[in-house]
Amino acid sequence: MTGQRAFEDWTKSVQSRMEDALAFFLPTASEMPARLHQAMRYAVLDGGKRVRPLLVFAAGDLFDADTAMLERVAAAVEMIHAYSLVHDDMPCMDDDALRRGKPTVHVKYDQATALLVGDALQSQAFLVLAEGGGLNDSSRRVAMIRLLAQASGSVGMCGGQAIDLASVGLALSRDELERMHRLKTGALLRASVLLGALGGKTLAEHEVSALDAYASAIGLAFQVIDDVLDATADSATLGKTAGKDAADNKPTYVSILGLEQSRALAAKLRSDAHEALMPFGDKARRLCEIADLIVQRKA
Amino acid sequence: MTGQRAFEDWTKSVQSRMEDALAFFLPTASEMPARLHQAMRYAVLDGGKRVRPLLVFAAGDLFDADTAMLERVAAAVEMIHAYSLVHDDMPCMDDDALRRGKPTVHVKYDQATALLVGDALQSQAFLVLAEGGGLNDSSRRVAMIRLLAQASGSVGMCGGQAIDLASVGLALSRDELERMHRLKTGALLRASVLLGALGGKTLAEHEVSALDAYASAIGLAFQVIDDVLDATADSATLGKTAGKDAADNKPTYVSILGLEQSRALAAKLRSDAHEALMPFGDKARRLCEIADLIVQRKA
Repeated sequence: MTGQRAFEDWTKSVQSRMEDALAFFLPTASEMPARLHQAMRYAVLDGGKRVRPLLVFAAGDLFDADTAMLERVAAAVEMIHAYSLVHDDMPCMDDDALRRGKPTVHVKYDQATALLVGDALQSQAFLVLAEGGGLNDSSRRVAMIRLLAQASGSVGMCGGQAIDLASVGLALSRDELERMHRLKTGALLRASVLLGALGGKTLAEHEVSALDAYASAIGLAFQVIDDVLDATADSATLGKTAGKDAADNKPTYVSILGLEQSRALAAKLRSDAHEALMPFGDKARRLCEIADLIVQRKA
Repeated sequence: MTGQRAFEDWTKSVQSRMEDALAFFLPTASEMPARLHQAMRYAVLDGGKRVRPLLVFAAGDLFDADTAMLERVAAAVEMIHAYSLVHDDMPCMDDDALRRGKPTVHVKYDQATALLVGDALQSQAFLVLAEGGGLNDSSRRVAMIRLLAQASGSVGMCGGQAIDLASVGLALSRDELERMHRLKTGALLRASVLLGALGGKTLAEHEVSALDAYASAIGLAFQVIDDVLDATADSATLGKTAGKDAADNKPTYVSILGLEQSRALAAKLRSDAHEALMPFGDKARRLCEIADLIVQRKA
C-alpha cells in the first residue's frame, strides 16, 4: 500500500469514527427540546472534511494519546467549528444560504434557531470536554478547556471574525490580513494540534513551540488555499457559494498577491510545516500528510 | 444594625466587588480587537442586579468558600447571563431596544457585533472558570465547568429559550410554562447556587438535593415575579420594555393564574425556599434573604 493510499484510508477511518463520535456526543434528536436538538445535529453531522479532528488525531499520534480521549477532544473542537459556521452564515454576518452542499441552518430552520444552535453547540463543546472518562489527570483536562476557550473567544476565533467584519471594503495589508486569519481560523487549528498532543501528555515548552510553528504554517496555508479556491472553483465543488469574497469586496490573498504568488506562498508554508515537525520524526507522519492535504485540496 | 440593613449592605458590597471583578476578568477595551472588547464590556459592566453573583456568594458562605474563587465563579456565571441577554435582545429573537436602562448591544453597535459579543462572552466565561488560582483541586474545577456548561446549553438555558420561542402564541399549561422557565432561567440560577457551594467543598448528595429544592423554588419565584412586574410596572422602573409579554402574546403566570394567584404562588415559593435551607442553619441566612429579595423586588 502506498503512503498516499494509507493516508487516505487513515483519513476515512478518522472521518467515519468522528461521525459516530459526534452523533454520540450530541443530544439525541428525540430529547426535548427536540427541534433544537435536531437542528444542532443538522449543523454538525454528515458534512465537512473534519480537518480539525484529523489534526487532533494526527497530533495525538505524537505521544500515543488514548483514542477515546481524542474522540472527545476532536468532537469538542468540531462543535466549536460548526457553531462558528452556523453563526457566520446568518444574515447579519455573511448571509450565506449554502454550506457543505446543504441549506444553512437559518435557511433550513429559522434565524432564532440558528442563533440558539450556535450558542448551545458552544456549551456542548465545553461539556463534552469536561465530562467522561479517558483522562484521569484533571489538571490536564483543565488546561485543555482553557486552551479551547482561549482559541474560541475574543482573542481567538471570535476576535478574528470581528476583525474580518470590520475590514470589509478596506484595503488590508498582507500583515493585517495575516493577523486576521491567524485569529479567525488559525487559533482553532492551533488548538486542535495542541489539544491532540495534550491528549497524550503534558507538553514541554519546546514541544509547544514546534507545534505552534507547524500550526501557524498550516493555518495560513489553509486560508491562502481557501482564497485560491474561492477565486477558481465553482459552488458545486466547494459545497458553498464560490466567488463570495470578491462579490463582498473582502480582502483575500488572491486580491493582494495574485493567484500565482498565492500558490507559491502555500507551497512555501507547506515546507515550513514539514520542517517544524522534524524533531518528532516518523511519529509526525500524519501531521505532515495533513499539511500536504491542506495545500493540495480541491474544495 | 437591623437584619434588613445588614443584608442591603452585604448586597451592595457584593455588587461593587463584582463590578471590579468583571472589569478585571473581561479583556481590556484597548486590546485588539478593540471594538469587540468595548462592546463586551458594554454588555456586562455597569448594570443589572447581579442576582446570580449574589447567589454564588451566599452559597459560598455555606462552606466558607475562598472569596477569590467565588469572584471567578460569579464572573463566569454573570458572563453567561449577559451573553444570553445580548442574543435574546436581537431582532431575530425578542427584538428589544432597551436593557438595564441602556440601548441593547445590537442597537448601540450592530447585529453582527452583538452576535460576536455573545459568542465571545460565552468562551470568556469558560476561560475565567478554567484559569487562575483560588482552587487547587482540579477535579472540583472540572466539575464546576461541567455544571456551567450543562446549565447553559441545550438542556439548560438555550433549551429553555428554544421552548420559549416555540411557545409564542400557544396556550401553554402551567406545567409546560414551568418546564420552560425551569430551563430558561432556572438552570443558571441553580448553577449559581451549586457553583458557590462547590467553591467551598465537594458536595454530598443530600446537600445537592437541599440546594436543588431551594434553587428550584427561587427560580420559579423569580419568573412569577418577572411576569407580575411585566404586567404592572413601567419601563423606566424596569429598565427594559414593560408589557412586552402581553404585546408579544407570550404565555405568563399572570395570563394563566391571574395577578393575585401569581403573587400568592410567589409567597408560597419563598417559604419553600426557606424550608429547603433549614439543614444549613444560620449559614444559609444570605440565601434566605435572597429568596425574600427575589419575591419583594420592584424591578
